[in-house]
Amino acid sequence: MSQHESFRKRPLAGVRVLDCTWATGGPYGSLLLAFLGAEVIKIETPHNVTGVTTRQMLFPRHTHKGGDVHFLTYNRNKKSMVIDLRSDQGREVFYDLVKESDVVFDNFRPGVMNRLRIDYETLRKINPRIICCSLSGYGATGPDKGKAAFDTIIEASSGITSLLSQLLPAGTVPPCYPGISWADHVGGLGAALAIVVALYAREFSGVGQRLDVGMQDMLISMSGYTLTAVANFKTWADPLPKMLWGPFKTKDDYVVLCGHREGMWRRLCKGLGHVEWLTDPRLDSHSKRIEHGEELRSMVEKVLLTKTTRQWLEIFTEKDVPATAINSVEDVINSPQTSARNMLPGFDHKGKEILAPGNPFKMSGLDETFQAPPDLGEHTEEILLEILKYSSEKIAELRKGNIVA
Amino acid sequence: MSQHESFRKRPLAGVRVLDCTWATGGPYGSLLLAFLGAEVIKIETPHNVTGVTTRQMLFPRHTHKGGDVHFLTYNRNKKSMVIDLRSDQGREVFYDLVKESDVVFDNFRPGVMNRLRIDYETLRKINPRIICCSLSGYGATGPDKGKAAFDTIIEASSGITSLLSQLLPAGTVPPCYPGISWADHVGGLGAALAIVVALYAREFSGVGQRLDVGMQDMLISMSGYTLTAVANFKTWADPLPKMLWGPFKTKDDYVVLCGHREGMWRRLCKGLGHVEWLTDPRLDSHSKRIEHGEELRSMVEKVLLTKTTRQWLEIFTEKDVPATAINSVEDVINSPQTSARNMLPGFDHKGKEILAPGNPFKMSGLDETFQAPPDLGEHTEEILLEILKYSSEKIAELRKGNIVA
Repeated sequence: MSQHESFRKRPLAGVRVLDCTWATGGPYGSLLLAFLGAEVIKIETPHNVTGVTTRQMLFPRHTHKGGDVHFLTYNRNKKSMVIDLRSDQGREVFYDLVKESDVVFDNFRPGVMNRLRIDYETLRKINPRIICCSLSGYGATGPDKGKAAFDTIIEASSGITSLLSQLLPAGTVPPCYPGISWADHVGGLGAALAIVVALYAREFSGVGQRLDVGMQDMLISMSGYTLTAVANFKTWADPLPKMLWGPFKTKDDYVVLCGHREGMWRRLCKGLGHVEWLTDPRLDSHSKRIEHGEELRSMVEKVLLTKTTRQWLEIFTEKDVPATAINSVEDVINSPQTSARNMLPGFDHKGKEILAPGNPFKMSGLDETFQAPPDLGEHTEEILLEILKYSSEKIAELRKGNIVA
Repeated sequence: MSQHESFRKRPLAGVRVLDCTWATGGPYGSLLLAFLGAEVIKIETPHNVTGVTTRQMLFPRHTHKGGDVHFLTYNRNKKSMVIDLRSDQGREVFYDLVKESDVVFDNFRPGVMNRLRIDYETLRKINPRIICCSLSGYGATGPDKGKAAFDTIIEASSGITSLLSQLLPAGTVPPCYPGISWADHVGGLGAALAIVVALYAREFSGVGQRLDVGMQDMLISMSGYTLTAVANFKTWADPLPKMLWGPFKTKDDYVVLCGHREGMWRRLCKGLGHVEWLTDPRLDSHSKRIEHGEELRSMVEKVLLTKTTRQWLEIFTEKDVPATAINSVEDVINSPQTSARNMLPGFDHKGKEILAPGNPFKMSGLDETFQAPPDLGEHTEEILLEILKYSSEKIAELRKGNIVA
């Protein structure tokens, strides 16, 4: 295989990640790196460093042979090694691994890596090329840095939950979480980006660095124009709910559509059978359509109520109006588009095929094979022998002292 | 400045991006690349290639001197160049730029770049190192590839809107959009990651590649264990709403807390003044606490109703229970953590300081200065002279023919 083809297959080939993450955000970030070809070694401990392990069953009713849906989803294509990081000998094994690795990735609360003496300032002395990425709730600086945080906490602290609640009918209790775990997944994706940026920069600078990614910062970044509007204009930039944008009721369900841009507005009017709206002086510019937004939305809604969602989707597809049904998760699973994109590939988990979300980065030639999450310590021996070149005697001794497993 | 310091300041120094994006997702992705030190050149057209420009006022009531909050947020730290890509001469200028660039980034519907003859297959012949990233709604392959898509469409098509609706009281109309524009922002962040991965791989392979990122694929990826649960176990993995997780009512408002992990559960019981729950046989394991989830949640809620949110936050901070108020956007803007992390930095826009979300990737030494979005064609001259080394005569001729502006 040529150099060229081999980097097509695995763009992050040769990148070794010591993955000290747990819960959801960190493991999602390292999963993406594994999908992109990095060698990701899950470092697990015989103790519960923070009182948990990633293998704890969060979803006891959804398991297959020792793995719950959470573990099965976020730990594919990874290796597992067990080291007692609280022992001096275990720490030495970790230091030896750092010499042979590119990235140390954690999502502990700020301070934990220092207490374990595997923080960046320590590790750079062992390997100046090491990149240490810490993902945390609020980031590693500022008055809130030490606070415990999980997904739902950060969504509420960063304003996302309140933004969502504003859109619900008055008096509705804010939902427990907004559909999926945004803070975790966005945080993990952000950390993955920071890591690859540091890998790229290292090709020129020759040295690694410390990366500090806060889930709250990621969500603030994604709040985008909403935050800009309130910060500078003291009011929420609210045209979206007043625009031809989002779900509308039909005869039998909903249709989600967009008619906010000039061309779409014209095509939508044709699709709805109301071309006379195009020359209505109240509606002949985007600003006017926002100004009369509520009225316009009810005009559209009244027409949509006359046909079913399926009927409207046929019309809108033909007229090229952006539109969709509100798909259920089952609809997404059964969608031909999902299979065409290989977005729900199977992998063999102890004799059963399990389906889980695939790799969203479509790069030509990329290897899209998926392996089951590793058993606890499945790769300990291989790593000690092949990467660290430890002797069998040394390994036996470490095992005997419960330093590795 | 040493090589080392210079790459600290701008990890993507030397990377030139021809940014053909519009709307929100693409411009957000290229904004992140600009924050990380890439030179991002917005390619704008005198025509409306897709019937819009990024400068159209989506938010007419929230503007400052020709820029609305949307434009002001997503176009900082970028350059602007106007080229008529429909003309042969304009296309030649673009080809010349491609020779001097690393990335071409677009978020048109699949097919548009081909019609403009600036697709990857064409551009790689001009510069084999070029990386072409296309962000689209459904991705560039599969039966839905040609469908028009915006944020709200993709959230509904990918199952996010229905997941959210499941958590709302029966009969509640699904909100227009779930708090913020997730599909756009997640898509932009995903595209930025794919671009940097390709830049990294190019250091070894010597060649660029085509990247195809679908917003729907990104949201499917982030649906994580939810999708795995339904695909394999035919039911939604639903403990989250039954766990000690999320918002609870207090005497005056809400508090969001987590008590789902062993240590937190113990600290929460202490904070609530109910240590006897720790020895309650119905509650002495995570599985049992999920099994009796609804009962447990009402036990906790009853206690929380006796004090205000502020009082509970003091207690939970002291006991180290993950907890927060449901912060409003104003709370986030005024939070000392937001300033400590420089997450709402100002920039000068035509004499007024505008605040907008900052760079979420905290890398030591990174330059965090923010410039106003460029005026239309502000950098055309500079780019033609300094990057393309065109003569003044040639530039004058191009201007005269309205090929550049």
